[in-house]
This record gives sequence, C-alpha cells and structure tokens, in this order.
Amino acid sequence: MVVQQASGGKLVYRFSEGDASMAALLGGKGSNLCEMTRLGLPVPAGFVITTQVCRDYLAGGYTLPEGLAGTVRERIVELERAIGHQFGSPANPLLVSVRSGARVSMPGMMDTILNLGINDEIVEGLGAMMGDRRPAWDAYRRFVQIYSEVVLEAAPEPFEECLAAHKSRAGIELDYQLTAGQLQAVTADFKDIARQAAGTAPPDDPWEQLFGAVEAVFRSWNNPRAIVYRNQYGIDHDMGTAVTIMGMVYGNLGPTSGTGVLFTRDPSTGRREVYGEFLSNAQGEDVVAGVRTPEPLAALAYSMPERSEELLRLADNLEKHYRDVQDVEFTIEQGRLYLLQTRNAKRTPLSAVKTAVDMVREGMIDREQALRRVDPEEITQLLVPQFAADLTPGELAQRLAATGAGASPGAASGKACFDADTAEDLARRGERVILVRPETKPDDIHGIIAAAGVVTSRGGVTSHAAVVTRGLGKPCIVGCEGMQVDLELKEMSGNGHIIREGERLSIDGALGQVYVGELATVNPRLEDLPEANVLLGWADGARRLGVMANADTPADARQALAMGAGGIGLCRTEHMFLDPNRLPAVRQMLLNSEAAEEWRRRHGDRPVNLEEPGIPEGVIRFHEALGRVRRLQTNDFRGILRVMSHRPVIIRLLDAPLHEFLPPYDELLTELATRRGQLSVGPGLAAGPAAEELAEKEAFLQRVDSLRETNPMLGHRGCRLGLSFPYIYRMQVEAIITAGAQLLSEGVAVNPEIMIPLTVDAEEMRRLRAALTEVAAEVQGRMGVEVHYKFGTMIETPRAALTAGAVAGESEFFSFGTNDLTQMTYGFSRDDAEGKFLRNYINEGVLPGDPFASIDRDGVGQLVRLAVDAGRKARPGLEIGICGEHGGDPRSVAFCHEAGLDYVSCSPFRVPVARLAAAQAALNDD
Amino acid sequence: MVVQQASGGKLVYRFSEGDASMAALLGGKGSNLCEMTRLGLPVPAGFVITTQVCRDYLAGGYTLPEGLAGTVRERIVELERAIGHQFGSPANPLLVSVRSGARVSMPGMMDTILNLGINDEIVEGLGAMMGDRRPAWDAYRRFVQIYSEVVLEAAPEPFEECLAAHKSRAGIELDYQLTAGQLQAVTADFKDIARQAAGTAPPDDPWEQLFGAVEAVFRSWNNPRAIVYRNQYGIDHDMGTAVTIMGMVYGNLGPTSGTGVLFTRDPSTGRREVYGEFLSNAQGEDVVAGVRTPEPLAALAYSMPERSEELLRLADNLEKHYRDVQDVEFTIEQGRLYLLQTRNAKRTPLSAVKTAVDMVREGMIDREQALRRVDPEEITQLLVPQFAADLTPGELAQRLAATGAGASPGAASGKACFDADTAEDLARRGERVILVRPETKPDDIHGIIAAAGVVTSRGGVTSHAAVVTRGLGKPCIVGCEGMQVDLELKEMSGNGHIIREGERLSIDGALGQVYVGELATVNPRLEDLPEANVLLGWADGARRLGVMANADTPADARQALAMGAGGIGLCRTEHMFLDPNRLPAVRQMLLNSEAAEEWRRRHGDRPVNLEEPGIPEGVIRFHEALGRVRRLQTNDFRGILRVMSHRPVIIRLLDAPLHEFLPPYDELLTELATRRGQLSVGPGLAAGPAAEELAEKEAFLQRVDSLRETNPMLGHRGCRLGLSFPYIYRMQVEAIITAGAQLLSEGVAVNPEIMIPLTVDAEEMRRLRAALTEVAAEVQGRMGVEVHYKFGTMIETPRAALTAGAVAGESEFFSFGTNDLTQMTYGFSRDDAEGKFLRNYINEGVLPGDPFASIDRDGVGQLVRLAVDAGRKARPGLEIGICGEHGGDPRSVAFCHEAGLDYVSCSPFRVPVARLAAAQAALNDD
Repeated sequence: MVVQQASGGKLVYRFSEGDASMAALLGGKGSNLCEMTRLGLPVPAGFVITTQVCRDYLAGGYTLPEGLAGTVRERIVELERAIGHQFGSPANPLLVSVRSGARVSMPGMMDTILNLGINDEIVEGLGAMMGDRRPAWDAYRRFVQIYSEVVLEAAPEPFEECLAAHKSRAGIELDYQLTAGQLQAVTADFKDIARQAAGTAPPDDPWEQLFGAVEAVFRSWNNPRAIVYRNQYGIDHDMGTAVTIMGMVYGNLGPTSGTGVLFTRDPSTGRREVYGEFLSNAQGEDVVAGVRTPEPLAALAYSMPERSEELLRLADNLEKHYRDVQDVEFTIEQGRLYLLQTRNAKRTPLSAVKTAVDMVREGMIDREQALRRVDPEEITQLLVPQFAADLTPGELAQRLAATGAGASPGAASGKACFDADTAEDLARRGERVILVRPETKPDDIHGIIAAAGVVTSRGGVTSHAAVVTRGLGKPCIVGCEGMQVDLELKEMSGNGHIIREGERLSIDGALGQVYVGELATVNPRLEDLPEANVLLGWADGARRLGVMANADTPADARQALAMGAGGIGLCRTEHMFLDPNRLPAVRQMLLNSEAAEEWRRRHGDRPVNLEEPGIPEGVIRFHEALGRVRRLQTNDFRGILRVMSHRPVIIRLLDAPLHEFLPPYDELLTELATRRGQLSVGPGLAAGPAAEELAEKEAFLQRVDSLRETNPMLGHRGCRLGLSFPYIYRMQVEAIITAGAQLLSEGVAVNPEIMIPLTVDAEEMRRLRAALTEVAAEVQGRMGVEVHYKFGTMIETPRAALTAGAVAGESEFFSFGTNDLTQMTYGFSRDDAEGKFLRNYINEGVLPGDPFASIDRDGVGQLVRLAVDAGRKARPGLEIGICGEHGGDPRSVAFCHEAGLDYVSCSPFRVPVARLAAAQAALNDD
Repeated sequence: MVVQQASGGKLVYRFSEGDASMAALLGGKGSNLCEMTRLGLPVPAGFVITTQVCRDYLAGGYTLPEGLAGTVRERIVELERAIGHQFGSPANPLLVSVRSGARVSMPGMMDTILNLGINDEIVEGLGAMMGDRRPAWDAYRRFVQIYSEVVLEAAPEPFEECLAAHKSRAGIELDYQLTAGQLQAVTADFKDIARQAAGTAPPDDPWEQLFGAVEAVFRSWNNPRAIVYRNQYGIDHDMGTAVTIMGMVYGNLGPTSGTGVLFTRDPSTGRREVYGEFLSNAQGEDVVAGVRTPEPLAALAYSMPERSEELLRLADNLEKHYRDVQDVEFTIEQGRLYLLQTRNAKRTPLSAVKTAVDMVREGMIDREQALRRVDPEEITQLLVPQFAADLTPGELAQRLAATGAGASPGAASGKACFDADTAEDLARRGERVILVRPETKPDDIHGIIAAAGVVTSRGGVTSHAAVVTRGLGKPCIVGCEGMQVDLELKEMSGNGHIIREGERLSIDGALGQVYVGELATVNPRLEDLPEANVLLGWADGARRLGVMANADTPADARQALAMGAGGIGLCRTEHMFLDPNRLPAVRQMLLNSEAAEEWRRRHGDRPVNLEEPGIPEGVIRFHEALGRVRRLQTNDFRGILRVMSHRPVIIRLLDAPLHEFLPPYDELLTELATRRGQLSVGPGLAAGPAAEELAEKEAFLQRVDSLRETNPMLGHRGCRLGLSFPYIYRMQVEAIITAGAQLLSEGVAVNPEIMIPLTVDAEEMRRLRAALTEVAAEVQGRMGVEVHYKFGTMIETPRAALTAGAVAGESEFFSFGTNDLTQMTYGFSRDDAEGKFLRNYINEGVLPGDPFASIDRDGVGQLVRLAVDAGRKARPGLEIGICGEHGGDPRSVAFCHEAGLDYVSCSPFRVPVARLAAAQAALNDD
C-alpha cells in the first residue's frame, strides 16, 4: 500500500456540511446522511470523520492525527446542543453510534458500535430517561458485548453462551423476555468475560470508549473478511473507511417503537412496489443479523398507519432524488420516525435490469445511464440454471425438506456442508457444495464464495446471507424455520428428511424450497427475458466491438445465436477428437502417424492407394482412421456452418498435444507394475500368454511414454504438430472446405475462417498457408464450388505478439489466445498455479487480481497493443479479436475496446455480458 | 526462402574480369582464381557463372536464365583459343572441370565434375594427345562415374564394387595398375550401371554434359549434407553457389606429373613452415578423398626440385598477398606447375591463434585484424581435454591399438561406432561415441557432428575427415594404416587388439594414437597457452562488455578466475541442495516446510525455541534441518566469496521447484504398484508389517504427488517459493551475510549480490526485499560487521521484461535469464522441444537457428531491449547482464553489446570465447 501523506485538510464534517457527492471522503453512508440532512429528512444529528483520516491512520503507524480529538469533542458538544442530552452525563445522557462506511458499500464487512457513551452510572440515568430500566440495560449489555468484540478483540462465543445460559436459567426463549435485573446480571458477566479474554472490560469513560471505537473502525478496514470481500469484488484496498458518529435513537422502547429496512422497489424481481421488513420493539441489528424473523413492512400500515405513510412518502422522495432504487434503514422511537441510512439498493440481476429499463421508460434516467447502471456480470446471473420440470408435483412434495424465503434466485444442487471451511475445501476439490447454516456471518464469506448456494434456517431477506448471495448471483434461501440445523452432528432435518454432511440437496432460490437429492436443471433463455433484451438492444446500438462466441458444436452455435453472438470466434476441434465414440479412430490415427509420415517423406504427397501391395500395416491403419475422422469432421463443420450461415466461423485446427488423446501414463504404469508384481510371485512367469500380454502392454506404455512431455503446455502441440504431421491439418482443411462446398451447393451461405494455433514465427504460417491453400484449392476444384475462406492465426505466444508484423504478412486475421499468452507471459501454468501459489498471490495482494480472470494490462496487455500496432501496420484492415476466456470478462472487454480490437469472443453464456460491457466501454470513450 | 528476381546483370565472368573482392558473386574459389589470374600466377584458363544465376535458378523453377547458354559457348571458344585445344574435338580435345564454390567455403559439401567434354571418340583423341591411352581412359571412367552420381543421381556403391571386381579379376590392388584396356572395360560397365540406375548413361554430347553439370552444381546447393553443414556453421541458406569452369590439367600423365595440396603454415600447430602433401601420377581427387596416402611435400623437393622451389615461392607470395595462411591446390602436368585453387586455410584453433598473433608480430596484420580473424568458438577448442598422465608408458603401449596422423587435436573417449547413423543414434541417447571408418565422405557429416572424435584407417591430414573435424574442433586421427576396419563385422583391429561396436576406445588427436578402453582426461589451462593469452589480452583492451562466469563451487570459481572472468555472474544454489550428502537434510526441511509455515503464521516471526514444550514434531524437524542446511550454505558461500574476494559474486536464491529434491514420482509409483501386486497374490496381505510398510509408502507417494506439477517449468518455483516458504530465502540470505561478515572479519574483501529468480511483478521484489533486508540487517547487527551487498533480480519471464520499469524500482541489478525467457517467449519447453520438434524446425529451416544456442533477436531480443530501456529510465546506472547459456555464444555476445548490457556471464570454460566475442562486437561498433 502506498504511504499517504497526511492531507492537512478538514478532518471532520457535520452532516450539514456534506452531500452525496462526497462519498470518497465521507463514505457512502456518511455522505448520504449528509445529503438526507440537507434534504431536511428526519436524520439524527451527527458528523463524519473522513476516509483521509483513516488512510493517514493506517499508513502512519496506527496513531490518530493531531487535532482530531479536539474537533470531535467540539462536534459532540454541538450534538449535545442539537439533541438536548449530554455525552457522559448520568442525569441526561447522550448515547451515540459509531459506524464504518467506505465509498463503496461492503455490507457487514466492517464494524459498527452502538449505544456508546454508557457505563454503570449512566445506564440508570438512561433508564430513568426512557422510563424503563429494561431497554437501558439491554443497550448496555449489547454495548459491552460489541465493544469487547470489536475494540478488545474478544471472541463472540462466550457472550452467546452466557446469554443462552441466563435465558435457560430464567426459563425463557427470547432475548427481550429478559428483565432489567437479569440483563444487569448478564452485563456483569459480560464484563467478566471481557476481562478474561482481553485483560480488561470496556472502559467506563465515554470519551475513552469513543476514541477506542473510532480506532477499531479504522483497523477493521484491514480485517481478513474485509480483504476477502474487496478481492472478490475488485474493490481498491487503499480507499479506507470513514467513521460516522450519530446520536442514538431507540427502536426498543416498547410497542410504539421498532426498526426496519425498506427497498423502494422489489430487490428480487424489480417490481415497482415497496418491499421491506419491520421488527417492533427491537434495535436495527436484530433485523440485519437475522436473529429474529421480522414481519413484512405491510404490517406497519396496520400498527402505525401514519408512520407508515410518512415512511413511504420519504422513501419515494429519496428514490426520485437519487434516481435509483433506495435501501433505507429506519427506526421509530416511541412514535417518531428516523431515517438512519439510505443507499442505492443491492438487487438481484433481474431486478437491476428491470429497474434500469423501467426507469428509462418512466423518464427518470436515460438509456446511457441505464446501460451504465447494470453490472455486465449481472446479465449472466439472469441466465442462472433453474430446475427442470421433470418431477411430478407429488414427487417434488415428497422430496421437499424445507421452505423458506427465496433470497437470491437460481437453482443449484450440491453436497451439504455445515461450515465455511469445509465448503471451501470441498469446492477446491471440484465438488459443488451447498452451505447450510443457522445463519451466516461475515466470517463465513469464504464459504459463501465457494458454495453453489446457501440455506439458512434463520434470518430474513435482508440478512447477511441474503445480501451477500444476491451480490454474488448465487441461489440463497433464508428463514427456513421448519428446518433444524445441527452443527455438532453436521446434519439438517425437516419434513421427515435428514441430510448429512456430504449428502446431496437442491435449492430453488426463487421459490425458497429445499429438496433432498439432486434435481435436473435447465438454463433460462435470453429471449424470455424482455427487459434484458431491451437493455442489450440498447447496448448493441452503443458498442463498437463485435461480440462472437466460442462454440464447438451445432448446439453451442445455436445457443450462441440465441445469446446474440455475431459469429463463432473460436471453434475448437479438440472436443470433436475427444468424443468417446471417436477416440478409437483418433488413437488409431495418432499411433500410426509416424509410420504414415515416414511413408510420405519417402513416397511424396500423392494419395496413398491402400489396395496396392507392399504398403506397411501402420500406413494402412493410419489412412483408414484418417478417412473416418475426416468424414466425421466434415459433418461437424457442416452442422456448425449451417447454423451460423453467412456469419463468420473461425475454426482452430488441432491444438492439443497428442498424448491428450491417449490413456494417462500413470494409470498404465500402475496397471503394468501391479501385474508385474503379481507375476513375480504368482505362478507361470515364463513364456505364455501372461508374458506376451505383459510385453504388449509394455510396448504400449513405451509408445505413450514417448509422447509424454515434461511441460506439455510448452511442448509438441499447435502448429508444431501441424508441421510434423501434415496429414492432420490437411484432413481438417479438407473437411472444412468440403463442408462449406456442400452447403453452398445446397444454397446455404458459409463464411469459414481457418485458424492456426501456437504460432511463434511467420515462417510457420507461410509454410502451412502454402500447403493448406493447396488442399483447399484441390477440394474446390474437385467439387467445382468456390468457397470463400480466410486464413489467420492465434497470437498466443509472446513471440508471435513480438513479431506480429511479420506474422501479419501471412495472416488475414489475428485472434489473441490470452489464456496461453497469460501463462507464458507470467510463466504461470494455470493447472499448477491456481492451487499452489496464485490463490495466495491474489489473497495476499502480491498481484492485484487474477490475470486469468481479467487481462493483465501491464504485461499481457502491452503485448496485445504491440501486436495490434505492428499487425495493422503490416496489413491495414487486419481483423483482430480475442478468444481467450478474457473475452467474457467486462474489464478485459473494456481493454479490448481501448486497444482497438475488432471483436471479442467468449462462451455463449457470457455473450450478453460482453455485449453490455462493450457498450459501457464505448460510453467511456469520451 | 525469399524469391529472387533475376538480376539482369552479367551472368559470366572471365578469370581476368574478377578479383578477390567478388566472392559473394563469384564464390570464394572463383574469385580467388580471378585474383590469381590477375596476379599473373599459373592458373588454367577459365570463367565463372555467378551465384546470382544460381539463386535465380533455384527460385525460378530450376530453369537456366536466357542468354546463359550463348555466353558460356562464347567463353568456351575463348578457352579453346587460350589453351589451343577444342571442346568436343576428337582430334585436339579440350576437357574442362566444373566446380561449385560459394562465398563461404564448404569443403566437400557440393559437387565437382572433372574431365568433362569426353566421349568414346574423344577419349582416343585425348590418349593420342597425352601419348598414352591409360590416363585418357582413366579420366573417362572417372567422368562416367562422377557424372552418373552427380547429374544422373546414381548410387556410388555399384561403381565401387565394379571397379573392385575388375581389379580382383586382374589380380591387382591399386587403381593405377589398371591398363588402358581394363579401364575401357570398366568404363563400359560404368555406363551399364548408369543405365540401370538412371535409365541413361551420361550423354555423349560435350555441350549436353556441360549444361547438365552446371545445373547439377546449382541443385547440389540444396542437397541434404550441404543443408546440415550450413546449419552447423550458421551459414545463410540463401547465398547460392557459383560455378567455375576451367580447362583441365592432368596430374596423372606419368612420373613428372602429380598433384598436391599445400598450407603456407602448419594448419595444426600454426608453426611457420610450409606443410603439405603430394601424390605423384594422380589427379586431385585422389588426395582429397584420402583413397591413397600421399607423401609429405618435402618429397617433391627431391623428385622435382625446380617445381618445388617455384611452388614455395608462389605460395609465399600468395600468403603475403592475402595476408593470411593459404591452402593451395596444385597440379604438375608433365613438369609444368598449375595452381588450381587458393583459399584461406582451415586450421586448428591452436594454429589460428598462433598465426594471428605471429602475423601481428611479423607486421603482416594489426591487432584488430588479429582479433577479427580468430573465431571465438575456436578459443574453447584450445582448451579441449587431453589425456591425463596416469598410465605408465608401458601400460599405454599395451593399450595402444593403432597410430596414425594426428589430424585434429584433443583427446576423447567413447564407444566405437562404424557408421554415421549409429553414431547419431547413440549420441542422441546421451552416449559419447567415436566414429571409426576406413575413410569418411561428405555423407557422413551427421555422424561426425554427433561423434566425440573420428578415426580413419586411410587418408591424409587434408582428407575429408581431417578438414571437417578441425573445423568442428574434435579430435581426429587419419591414416592409421596398421589398423583394419571391418564394416561387416563392425569391428576394428590393430596391434593385437579388437574393438567391437559399442566397446570403448580413446583417441589422442594431437599424437595420432588410438587406445583400447577409456583414458582419464585433463583440461589444459589457459595460462599455459601463451599466444592465446596475448590475443585475449588484446581482446580485453578492446571490449566494453564485462565478462563474468557462472560458478557454483570454489573450484568453479577458481576455474573462472583462471579463464579471466571478472566475477561470478550466476552462482546457483540448487546444486548445493542436490549434493547427495545434503539431500536428506534438504528433504527433511522441504517435507516439513508446510508445518513450519503454519506455525509461523500462527506464532509470528520470532525464532522458534525447539526446547519449548508443545512444538509439533514437524516444526522441530524442519528447524533442525534448516539449521543444518544453513551451516552448510554458509560454508559454501564462504568458499566462493573467499576465492573471488573483491569481485562481484551474484548469488541466485533457490529457483528449482521443490519436487526436484524428492525421488521421482514414477519410480515410487512403480515400486508401490509392484509391491501391491505381489501382496495381492502373495500371503499375508492383512495387517502386519507389509500392510504398514505399504501405508507408509503410500503416504510418501501422496506427499510427492502433491508437489508434482503438470508444467513444472511454469510452476511453483523461484520467488514464488520464496514468498510461500519465507524460511528458505531467509536462511540463504543469513548464510550469505554471515559468510561475508566472517570473511570481512578475517580481512578478506567481499562483494556479494543477492539475486531473486523468476520475478513477474515489482511487488514480489518489494516484499522479498523488505523481508530479506531485515534478515541481512539482523545478521550484521548481531555480528557487528557491515557487509555491502546488492539486491536484484533475474529477468526471465516475459512479464518481468515488459514491466521492467517498475521492477527496476526494487532492484539494483538485472540479470537476463535468457534460457527461461526463450522458453516462455516461444512457448518451447527445452526438455521437450529439442527431441520432438525443434531439431526438425531448425533442420528444415522453419527457424533460422536454435534460439537456445544463439539469442533470438526478433522476439527475445526485443524483450531484452524493452527491459534495458525501461530499467535504465527508472534507475539510471542499473547494472544489467545476462546469465543464460547465451552468455557464452559469440552471436549473442554481439547482441548483448549492441543492446547496451554491462556484462555477460557464462560457464568458466566459455569465458575466453566471450572475451574475444565481446572484443569483436566492440570492433564492429563503427
């Protein structure tokens, strides 16, 4: 982190001194409180310590800047005047909240301390002022716990156990059933717990409490879960948090008090109706933590109709003011409404898209704003799997284990896991897991990221699990009250079913239903999402980059078209070779390819007549298999070209090393050694079938061994194979041109482009181009049809990029293979790096992000720019695209736009993401 | 190959029209014949067809340009006038030779046709003119054979068998014992052989013969052995050959005729005395092919003293004229001397160095010329191994199998091979081989390149084997007349010994002695080579680049100093870890490193007190091993730093992936599977020692497996390890600084530089620098000694080069690791590429050369230049060098000079090469 110089600027802002534009300095929460104050809304008085103070604090050895304490004291005095209570006064006490808030909202990731300014003496004055000792002692015991945890760094469990013990001793179930006297005893025990854990209880001096809390909030910027969260969302680690200090209001002062959360539109569906929850006689944290399940907001209209009406009116004003859906926290203290916070609402992708399109229609925002407002990543989440309709209602009912609130849509199946660490472990081993918890906490963030979905037995649709999963676009169900989760036994039960750790369950995050076992899923179709189509239509009008798809089959190609792809940017032929039905022919071809090459070298290029006497067995076997594979490939290409018709289809010739098509060496070795071991002690090792079989296997093992490579990534693959075994590429080109010619004869337009992988030097292209052009001409001549095609290369080695000028002399198009290019530029083997060191590099901030997820602008990006410049200089009008996985990553799409590429290509599923990202990149041009 | 446009220039030059400066157009041979003609030397009349005609011919579909035939006919008419004979005239016949000759001499690689212009009628006229039918028929039968082989592409063996059959029938042994009549019969049989092999005998029309020969010479430019030769010597494939046509003179017209070769100084030792061979009554090819063993040139002084004197005088003039040692071919025809060719002599490195230095002393050339004249590669060849003096003369005599002429110095041992293909095969499998042949031919070139040395039973010191091996710097013995070579039985015998294929022999190419079995060798020391030291001293004065050595041990370091290294540019620590005595401690350290890291993460950085209770076993084992390795490393570094004293020593911290220090997975897997197989049929699988042993091995296998990587080259190694397992680098830095501090205390100056491998991002350097600087400070504080050291990185990933500006911010020096940089820039795994496709790429000209041997200027070189620019801009005065194997390659050294590097570092053995190459690069600056 860069060391920040103390700014020397203003350290603290009154709510009346700021506005919504100052989020970078005052945090999102603080600047919005200022804005609301400015708008004359009922916000408790308060002030904000800037993010600059936080940055200075963290960079400067964890000491608060000079002058801060004095200013804070002055502001507190102003608060006292505004509210009419006094900080530290036992007779007329003022309590405050101390909240974190960065420019970007990170719900639950940093610390908040409520009820600050209390001690053994003040609590009684507070009770007197409230007219009830119970809420005063309740506030006090909450303060002691949260302060101990946040500032003194005590563990939370002993507090929870202590509270449970008190309740059980009192024979009650719910916290608010505890009497003032019982709460007083709890508070005393809490202080003992703090003393045991941290050597001291929270200080009695309110000022000491206040500055301790401010420092703790600053420190919480760098707590592990906040770092994980920022990595996950690509948030700058250097931003720092502001601290908002505000007079306390109380939702727990009896039946005319309460607290709640409101969304101005449905954050799940985007429907234009207010959506929220209310918990009477409670403080805000009860709602957010999901400990008690709140009532729908509608209930408020019955219990406090005037406050409900006021709330809805203010919320509507806020939405109009911010021109965006608002997420508002409010508290009613003995019949008086306070707004504690407003922010742009986190929503499901469905809701984000619908509200953006609706707001354009309502005239609230323009199309450009709508396009900017939807995160391209969200578009894919509209297309998350949903369960197929292949079970009868009766069967479904039988498998239903629990029902809760659908907090984040989508369907997922996986193995049940009951803690975040196990979920992360299993996911790392490639398992799909569903995280099941009574409730989730910020500490569980790594498990949530690893899981395919989350279920909690407690909490509402604004609880931690719900908010986080919506952001991640994963299905989530909360508040499954009929479901028991036993963390000791690691099992959940409900509706007569028990699901143990590792057993499969399925969840529908839209309906809120949990099923036993695995259910089949289907993918929703883009054409069934009208608002998304409208938005993407606007995007297509705004973007300059073309968007193509990577597709290897006719089904993929149809999917690509449905997603709006303008063509196929990468059709890989490996998968066609790996099809289990074809593998025997492919292996026969590969294992005899040396024999065939030897023959060709000696007898020249003329076609081999297999009927002639004297042709070696290997040559015959090779050509038989080659013919079979060619016929299959011709059909493959026919299918894809027919679907895409006049649109370009870029077909990459075989890239994978040959050993990928053979059985794994280790398995063969193990089998052979085991057999050898058996024969060494068993009978009859000598001659006979056993020995013969062994010799044959041994020979096969040696053939496979001869194709093994120390570093297959950098080995005999791509056009190196194309040059060593010319038959394979010739066969592929013959298949492509034959398929094209057949379709043209049938009146179908075709537009194939032939792509050579792994080029390092123009000479490779020159030779392959000469040889393959000849093949194409031969087929066209034979079939009497002219097939228009292009010939180009992938730029996926640093050298191809560095010598792109020469390579462009032999290529009509470039396609950056940024997966391999990233591997070679970093010297990171993706297979090895992810598990071994790359994850750590990213988590610990050695690298700012995963270069395989989002293109590395400094290194790989520099090569791309060099190659674009040199390529276009050598061949004006050179067609240039990208076909690595980066093609579907919004930040990489933005880079491709800036670097002047013609198109990006990505998986069909990510085509809509790329369309929107390309539009946003174009909007940012000015 | 680039298509050349027909030049439209002059196609043919008379000898009187050219001079020595026109070698590119007329070839070395042709331009020298022009020069000699210009000097008034006795050269037979002739003319030259240019290399441009050859290039046009090869590029233009193998047709001779318009106008060539007419011009050649005119020149032949001039020849007829000059010589007084007529081409195609039976009465007064003129015969010519048709010779190839490129700008660069490629002895024996292309074709030459002698005695052209002969047929059944003309031969008798020739006989009449010579006064003897025998030499006429001898010329004719030679012509028929060579023309059939070269132009008609018939195989040579049937001709040789036929000739042998005729001799045996006649009861004679030597060719020249055949009578005219017998030769006439041989000629008739040769024509039959040609008809059978090629469908036609050589044409009778002299003009048809002539143009057929010209085309064949052009085609021979692209014959396989010429391509291999050009690859071996890095000769441009696009140069083409000229054709020299010259009137024939005859050395086989009786006792006052003969032919020979002369060197103006000894090509083996460089001694200033004429050295040569003469074969009376013979044609030139008898000498060159080594079929008959010629006499020393001194013999000529007895037989023809006047001619001898004339020859020596002309040779001395030629040397003075060319200011270089000349290799002169001459023929005496019935007492008249003709010079047929002169060229700068191929010599042994010893001779090259001595003659260069001598000629400066003689005032013939200046120092710059001397420096340019010696090929840097030759310098290493001075340091080729020689046999140690550990056998008594008696023992040596017992093992002596044969004695011949020492044709190329050096000593080598290896397995006997009797054909070039076997030699190449065995060498590819890592064996050292000695090629043993009756004589070698141009077709054997691949076997000679593969062999460690060559022995022939026939031929002289100017035979094919001798010339080629001297160029390659390999030991060679020729003319071992007492030795029998049986190619059928694949064995050689001599002096009572028999050596069969695969058995070992040793050869001393200086003394010309062949021994049975393997003899120990020693490496000569540079300080014992006075002329080389003089020349390298001049080089040191001329060069700007520093020259350092790669050395891992004190012995290497002493060798480096002896070779003139200015410091250690790369001290690898892997080899220290791999020492078999240390491997157990290293393995113990590595296998427990995760446990130790886990402990460190939880307990912080303070030193671990192994006596404390509760420390896990793994942590204890790790720290015990770490301590052991640190003490050993401290001694390693003490040793090297002490040898190098004030000179810089760049120590690279551990680079290799951890699994390199563990047993190979395949071996463990095989062992375990075999054991499992045995237990599955053998008794007592259940519990007990066998099962326990199995479980233990299984666990170890899994640990080794967990460290395996798909692409280790791109895996968890270098500074990635340094960041994951900080203990290892800390230990190494502690050892370096401790060693330095100890030596300083003892009064020894030290200059260590700490180098971090495999950097991809400045952040890696920043973190490691911070952590390791702290370690260094701690050691210095503890020892109370200040050790000056630098901290820098290898640039060996493309990304490090592309982000060099930022990296330089954290590095005081760069060292290009061009081995890895080449691997990643090309995506070539060196382990895989060499055997699989790279060799083909080079042989077939896809790449112009091996990028691992000589740096790739276009790709890797571009990265180097980018990094040098950005690095120096960010940190003026940044120290930059190269430590890949390229550091010892003269062409790469030239690149490093041009790119502005500060030094190159290479193996000690190649330091003298680099010194001279650096001087040559500096001389080329203007």
